[in-house]
Amino acid sequence: MAGNTFGTLFKVTTFGESHGIAIGGIIDGCPAGVSIDLEFIQAELDRRKPGQSAIVTQRKEPDTVEFYSGIFEGITTGTPIGFVIKNANQKSKDYSHIKDSFRPSHADYTYDKKYGIRDYRGGGRSSARETACRVVAGAIAKQVLTNLKFNAYVSRVGNIDIDKDYTTLDLSLTESNIVRCPDVEKAAEMEQYIKQIRKEGDTVGGVVSCVISGVPIGLGEPVFDRLHAALGKAMLSINAVKGFEYGSGFEGAKLKGSQHNDLFNEDGSTKTNLSGGIQGGISNGMDIYFNVAFKPVATIMQDQKTIDKEGNIVTMQGKGRHDPCVVPRAVPIVEAMAALVLVDYWLINRAAKK
Amino acid sequence: MAGNTFGTLFKVTTFGESHGIAIGGIIDGCPAGVSIDLEFIQAELDRRKPGQSAIVTQRKEPDTVEFYSGIFEGITTGTPIGFVIKNANQKSKDYSHIKDSFRPSHADYTYDKKYGIRDYRGGGRSSARETACRVVAGAIAKQVLTNLKFNAYVSRVGNIDIDKDYTTLDLSLTESNIVRCPDVEKAAEMEQYIKQIRKEGDTVGGVVSCVISGVPIGLGEPVFDRLHAALGKAMLSINAVKGFEYGSGFEGAKLKGSQHNDLFNEDGSTKTNLSGGIQGGISNGMDIYFNVAFKPVATIMQDQKTIDKEGNIVTMQGKGRHDPCVVPRAVPIVEAMAALVLVDYWLINRAAKK
Amino acid sequence: MAGNTFGTLFKVTTFGESHGIAIGGIIDGCPAGVSIDLEFIQAELDRRKPGQSAIVTQRKEPDTVEFYSGIFEGITTGTPIGFVIKNANQKSKDYSHIKDSFRPSHADYTYDKKYGIRDYRGGGRSSARETACRVVAGAIAKQVLTNLKFNAYVSRVGNIDIDKDYTTLDLSLTESNIVRCPDVEKAAEMEQYIKQIRKEGDTVGGVVSCVISGVPIGLGEPVFDRLHAALGKAMLSINAVKGFEYGSGFEGAKLKGSQHNDLFNEDGSTKTNLSGGIQGGISNGMDIYFNVAFKPVATIMQDQKTIDKEGNIVTMQGKGRHDPCVVPRAVPIVEAMAALVLVDYWLINRAAKK
Amino acid sequence: MAGNTFGTLFKVTTFGESHGIAIGGIIDGCPAGVSIDLEFIQAELDRRKPGQSAIVTQRKEPDTVEFYSGIFEGITTGTPIGFVIKNANQKSKDYSHIKDSFRPSHADYTYDKKYGIRDYRGGGRSSARETACRVVAGAIAKQVLTNLKFNAYVSRVGNIDIDKDYTTLDLSLTESNIVRCPDVEKAAEMEQYIKQIRKEGDTVGGVVSCVISGVPIGLGEPVFDRLHAALGKAMLSINAVKGFEYGSGFEGAKLKGSQHNDLFNEDGSTKTNLSGGIQGGISNGMDIYFNVAFKPVATIMQDQKTIDKEGNIVTMQGKGRHDPCVVPRAVPIVEAMAALVLVDYWLINRAAKK
Repeated sequence: MAGNTFGTLFKVTTFGESHGIAIGGIIDGCPAGVSIDLEFIQAELDRRKPGQSAIVTQRKEPDTVEFYSGIFEGITTGTPIGFVIKNANQKSKDYSHIKDSFRPSHADYTYDKKYGIRDYRGGGRSSARETACRVVAGAIAKQVLTNLKFNAYVSRVGNIDIDKDYTTLDLSLTESNIVRCPDVEKAAEMEQYIKQIRKEGDTVGGVVSCVISGVPIGLGEPVFDRLHAALGKAMLSINAVKGFEYGSGFEGAKLKGSQHNDLFNEDGSTKTNLSGGIQGGISNGMDIYFNVAFKPVATIMQDQKTIDKEGNIVTMQGKGRHDPCVVPRAVPIVEAMAALVLVDYWLINRAAKK
Repeated sequence: MAGNTFGTLFKVTTFGESHGIAIGGIIDGCPAGVSIDLEFIQAELDRRKPGQSAIVTQRKEPDTVEFYSGIFEGITTGTPIGFVIKNANQKSKDYSHIKDSFRPSHADYTYDKKYGIRDYRGGGRSSARETACRVVAGAIAKQVLTNLKFNAYVSRVGNIDIDKDYTTLDLSLTESNIVRCPDVEKAAEMEQYIKQIRKEGDTVGGVVSCVISGVPIGLGEPVFDRLHAALGKAMLSINAVKGFEYGSGFEGAKLKGSQHNDLFNEDGSTKTNLSGGIQGGISNGMDIYFNVAFKPVATIMQDQKTIDKEGNIVTMQGKGRHDPCVVPRAVPIVEAMAALVLVDYWLINRAAKK
Repeated sequence: MAGNTFGTLFKVTTFGESHGIAIGGIIDGCPAGVSIDLEFIQAELDRRKPGQSAIVTQRKEPDTVEFYSGIFEGITTGTPIGFVIKNANQKSKDYSHIKDSFRPSHADYTYDKKYGIRDYRGGGRSSARETACRVVAGAIAKQVLTNLKFNAYVSRVGNIDIDKDYTTLDLSLTESNIVRCPDVEKAAEMEQYIKQIRKEGDTVGGVVSCVISGVPIGLGEPVFDRLHAALGKAMLSINAVKGFEYGSGFEGAKLKGSQHNDLFNEDGSTKTNLSGGIQGGISNGMDIYFNVAFKPVATIMQDQKTIDKEGNIVTMQGKGRHDPCVVPRAVPIVEAMAALVLVDYWLINRAAKK
Repeated sequence: MAGNTFGTLFKVTTFGESHGIAIGGIIDGCPAGVSIDLEFIQAELDRRKPGQSAIVTQRKEPDTVEFYSGIFEGITTGTPIGFVIKNANQKSKDYSHIKDSFRPSHADYTYDKKYGIRDYRGGGRSSARETACRVVAGAIAKQVLTNLKFNAYVSRVGNIDIDKDYTTLDLSLTESNIVRCPDVEKAAEMEQYIKQIRKEGDTVGGVVSCVISGVPIGLGEPVFDRLHAALGKAMLSINAVKGFEYGSGFEGAKLKGSQHNDLFNEDGSTKTNLSGGIQGGISNGMDIYFNVAFKPVATIMQDQKTIDKEGNIVTMQGKGRHDPCVVPRAVPIVEAMAALVLVDYWLINRAAKK
């Protein structure tokens, strides 16, 4: 399907393998006249970058983005924005352990069966490295949507959950710690847990939550392209994501209508917000919030039995530098994908009325 | 965005308001040469139909589908399949209570703000009545995918959860009770609970689970159109859905990699299946399974305060015949949307290799 | 590809075979708040209708359109507009002559090879009968674009060409004669010629020209979706069309730059308009004009040698009631497709600037 | 609309301004397992390159393409193919003459009005420089479609037309002369004419014809995505194109059905081919052929009156190095776009039958 394009009017297409020459993308349909702050884009990339702290992979990738088109004298021109991030880490390493074998719970087996060939170096296209391009595009989307605020944060690492409603958190504290959890006490706990997990040669899953404020009323295109359906697809397209819920989510399935309904204030806002800012698939102006579940990274530093291409059982040992837990680095990716959905629907909504 | 089309190669477009003349749709891209069993389609519609049991809305809608094109002498011709379901229930009733007021947690307010106008009769386009068209299309998709089996069932109603892995259930029992829960003891409990909720004039949420067997390896289009991302979007596009998780889902976020990884058998199948049949966004041949959370129906038979178009607080009382719990009728809808995703990706995957 | 959908934001999907139960379509993405004049739509259909004059096919099809959704109290609601035109002419006639044989220069052979099956009755989906749905959708598009004027007319029948620039014609005379040629003297000549051709059991081709006035500046999406590229595709998608040219067209290929350049007036309009109202793929506010070439109808009332499904040479004689020349009935179809392109690009252009 | 993407399953997206840092693109959906000959791609680019002969622009652009992803050890992997062509010619020249004024019959005025801003250097995005990316993508498409042959050639320059059916030409002679006209006598005439035109500081239009052989039966997606409609759109999306006709084209409009119909041979091929290899929008296995009309280049080396942004009349003199006639360099572009259409429809057609 040529599945590397996202969006309808604000359309992002990406390319690139983990250990190829470069990754990059094209943002097509960005409105003209937007001032672009390149430093902001690089800062967003730095939030995702490997090697940024003691609890993420220690790979070295400067992740410097170069723009080739679409921005003229600092302003978008309405033409496609081409950008490239060179891969620093593309030297021929020893991949013999994964060239002919399939890592458990990775994409090795399925890519091989689907395409009959795969670039095995570092996971190739299935590596989360491609999400750097999403962060670049999302950083531009954020600069279009200057009235919206995207606040993602870590709300769970393994069994440590912040157990708090976002309205009781100070989201300005998210970047105050390397876990990116606004509850600083829980953050410290999570950090210790991730370090311990890494020592064990293991990995652990987690949850990223996201709040979007300042959303105008009316975004969403029923019936198939409801706003939350698009958000869900966007989040589920991120590596390692296993679930998405918005507003009351899976807890809402336990409630009664009399508990769940959001009653109106006179100005059209609602007293509660179990709807999560979206009703009938269309934003109602309240905060949009949602949770995204990430599985533990599949590469562990322990021996595992697996099979090679001939179906022989072989022993594989994790190599290389991998994240013990992806959620700290996933925070800017979740925000980026949210921004891409919102900017697309914001543009589309201009066609709603005559 | 013209959000009423689903799919890329197997493309379904639907139309229709709850109380308009008819609902219907066009299935474009159905391969030629498929034998169509019209009775099967009607049987699928009957599983979704109002009035089918004591625990669903008692509205009368025969939901008889008429096909206008695309099927010739019982066989699909490759041309678009047009179909129509006439609305029996379109008489002018008294809608004065919702014409100028917004029902809490419904789509009244957001449609009005987005479009400046809405067909308020029975919820108009935002009514779940449109899902009948999805069931028709899904029933055709199922007849294309004769090797696949779609088994959805109710796994939770309010606080009653079956708490069982699908592999320990006898899914052939799903249709043995009106709740559509294969755990017959829990089903009886759920049925009583729904009846009690209805007596209270209230509603309750629930969860539908779904298992897809017989899926060929290779379906899914990374990076944005991963198979589970498409499934998630499909499910989240169904009325009242608040969450989607597949495989280990939100529970997976609590696990370690050493617990979560699915080790291979020599034939490429896996010993466990926390991956949920999808790795790297591509099916691996194992069962695909997922959960879909539904909120409680917003229309309750109790007085609620709300606002009218001028922002005045008014009291609104639920009227009409509504479902106390949507999940029993949602089961065929979940299957239909799953079939639409699978058939589309199955066709798309034909282009993967030279 | 599911090729029965046209447009991106204003999206039209059609279904229906010539001799099936009905044809119809769905218009998705029509902006809310548009007043719809149903009589105007029917009047547009009547301009395309068979049996309307002595020089078109004498088949009887009332072509009455019924709307099922999307219009509430005479106003579009922003939801999909479903419509159906019942086929009057669907009785089982004698199709034995085409059931197993392929009519020369028809779509019989290619449909059979592509799909392995075809509805042979009256040409099935390949019949120009489907264009009635385009006229319905185009009539709604025209009511969205109230500031634009679409004037198509017949400029050639066989070797009779009006040989006049549209600026020297009185386009209000187009509907004054059954040929739909605004040059009334040429129209009379053409009418006689068509009648003579029909007597011979033959058919003849022609050209439809079209002028669009009142187009706002800025419509068109380079580089692949230039406005004239979309117009060209729209016209070439009409049955029997063999060519499209706009502005100076094929004559422009003979000219020098010094002859062809359109010099500006001070207000941004141009002194000449060889550009045809489009520069760089974007409308410049001048009249858009173009020509569309139609081949002669393939069904002739003369014996022709052809082959049957087994490759045997057989003799086939044209039967039924067919148009001796399609261009008089093609005029409203050309306008409809032009309106569909313009309304789509008008909506899309709202996203051009921040 | 984000108009810089072409294709549905074989999807090409391009970026880049004439005088920006680079142009480039992403080919998404190329089947896995295709051997890629990089020298062939560069050779195709060289056919389009400026400075290649005495009758084209003498600008210097090496047009060296670099591939960043999607090809592994010389074979496509099914993942997106990213590529970049650096601009050699991006030095700050003196653009004061076009910065604030609009060149007649260029895209300056319409881009400015549409986007409110434009990169005026060398025409920015509206420059035909972007077609280099089409040639790259087309060269890959050709390597997928190894059984098809794409033969474009110049058939007219100004008033010099070869006046010959392609079946009477030796198409292997196309590359034997710098005009790319297989009729070598006419080619010499055309070359002299272009040189004379250039001396006059003028430009001239022309026609490129194209023949595609070896096309399998069944490509094309009625009703809106007929194969020739897609070809027409592809050609009309090329800079300076004013018209497209296939098979009998505009001449066909003059004929009678009895003259125009293509009678079958016993094997399903046809004795004549006025249909141009496409019937009912679907390829019938015969050669596809079509003509593409190009207007004269708008930049002439003569003084012209025009307006500046304030609407003042100013005198503008053509500067820089421009093509006196684009058709010799357009030949590989026409072939590339034809290959892109054919490869996309070839992949799509795999979904036609069950």
